[in-house]
Amino acid sequence: MSSSVDNNPHTGAQNYNDSFPKIPAAAVGLRDADHMAAVLESGAKGRVYIRTLAHMLPDTVAHNVIGELRGSEFPDQYITVGGHLDSWDPAEGAMDDGTGLVQSIEVLRALKAVGYHPRHTIRVVLFANEENGGRGGRKYAEAAKAAGEKHLLGLESDNGGFTPRAFTLSLPEEKLAALRPWVDLLRPYGVYEIERGGGGSDVNPMQRVLGSVVGEYRPDSQRYFDYHHSRGDVLEVVNKRELELGAVNMAALVYLVDKYGL
Amino acid sequence: MSSSVDNNPHTGAQNYNDSFPKIPAAAVGLRDADHMAAVLESGAKGRVYIRTLAHMLPDTVAHNVIGELRGSEFPDQYITVGGHLDSWDPAEGAMDDGTGLVQSIEVLRALKAVGYHPRHTIRVVLFANEENGGRGGRKYAEAAKAAGEKHLLGLESDNGGFTPRAFTLSLPEEKLAALRPWVDLLRPYGVYEIERGGGGSDVNPMQRVLGSVVGEYRPDSQRYFDYHHSRGDVLEVVNKRELELGAVNMAALVYLVDKYGL
Repeated sequence: MSSSVDNNPHTGAQNYNDSFPKIPAAAVGLRDADHMAAVLESGAKGRVYIRTLAHMLPDTVAHNVIGELRGSEFPDQYITVGGHLDSWDPAEGAMDDGTGLVQSIEVLRALKAVGYHPRHTIRVVLFANEENGGRGGRKYAEAAKAAGEKHLLGLESDNGGFTPRAFTLSLPEEKLAALRPWVDLLRPYGVYEIERGGGGSDVNPMQRVLGSVVGEYRPDSQRYFDYHHSRGDVLEVVNKRELELGAVNMAALVYLVDKYGL
Repeated sequence: MSSSVDNNPHTGAQNYNDSFPKIPAAAVGLRDADHMAAVLESGAKGRVYIRTLAHMLPDTVAHNVIGELRGSEFPDQYITVGGHLDSWDPAEGAMDDGTGLVQSIEVLRALKAVGYHPRHTIRVVLFANEENGGRGGRKYAEAAKAAGEKHLLGLESDNGGFTPRAFTLSLPEEKLAALRPWVDLLRPYGVYEIERGGGGSDVNPMQRVLGSVVGEYRPDSQRYFDYHHSRGDVLEVVNKRELELGAVNMAALVYLVDKYGL
């Protein structure tokens, strides 16, 4: 789960297999887990008291929040970049996925600030309901299909706002090899690889439903699970410069795809 | 100096040019500097009161601390790996250079732990006096020359204990190109480049005095100057896993140089 030495429990989604009895489950911190394991190993009798106030509430309406720069040449063709709005409750979700939201918005802001007029429509999507079922991502792809939209790329940032390393794209190896000059362009800003891989959970429906290329921004992930879904996922652990470098690389990739296609 | 938004002054070495009068100088934090600049720009009169208790003390004796694994085949040929013991006084110098020390010691510990018997003697050196004049590094090279030692490599870690990116080596491009298979070996552990460059200030005298190849471990540096020489350079900002990945890569490079030469 984490290589940190803190005691922050990490929450997350839970699934039951109907072949087995449904027993209650709760996350505990790493130090507490080590302590309980040590007690059991010592042969001593251990007793744990847990009181949890968690309960299910009925579903409610949530919204994807969408902004766009209209394309000058192909306004009906789209490049989507996004992250997700929702987060688990132990903290504000600064890394999961506040940083992805900020970077996605920054792509549009930066392209607009330099006076770039995109050929295709570039859309930032702040997805709803990633953590709790992925319904925002699915809905976005379904609505795009219903509207007959053509999507070149769905790019997601949902791995924390850390220092850049790579992008993944759902392209075959020979197409990725042809993107080598792009990697050389990005390298001074920290991304040193575009590798084969999927998007994140919010843009993957675009591949299934729309046949779009999807991809992810892949920052250095060593610290991610120290914070992810825990009370440690707070604004103070985000480094401004690392966050900005991610946004720079994302804006550059979106620019290259808009200008040269995939 | 830093892209952080804290107000920690960064200390460091200071030099005077004898052609100009020697005026007192002191570091201030970034917020204080911004505030003073704003006051001056507003046209208001600004007054600053500084009281500093800094004063020069006479030199004293400090020691390089050295440990080694004796080589089985060429005990009189050496690979040196090191960092520096001294630090500036605002904090304990966890990143500058506690992490370099720990990683250097870890290289020896790890090679010993896996039962590796090096062909050459591998030496870890905890250098004295890097910050205050570099006399530990110079003395080490001079003593090695006086003893007639042959040194294959001087490798330094003095850029913080952050996630891996690269090594530098003082080799011509064609020799570096031949090391490409080593880069592929290191890549899963985070180092993705061996590039042309010097060592750090502690091993560079080995190049000048002994003609050794020198090099540096180059972690991701985005956060380094947020801490460097300031009261923020404390153990709490070191990430254990990032620190260990650096040590793994350093141990791997030392192993490869020991086994295959440079």
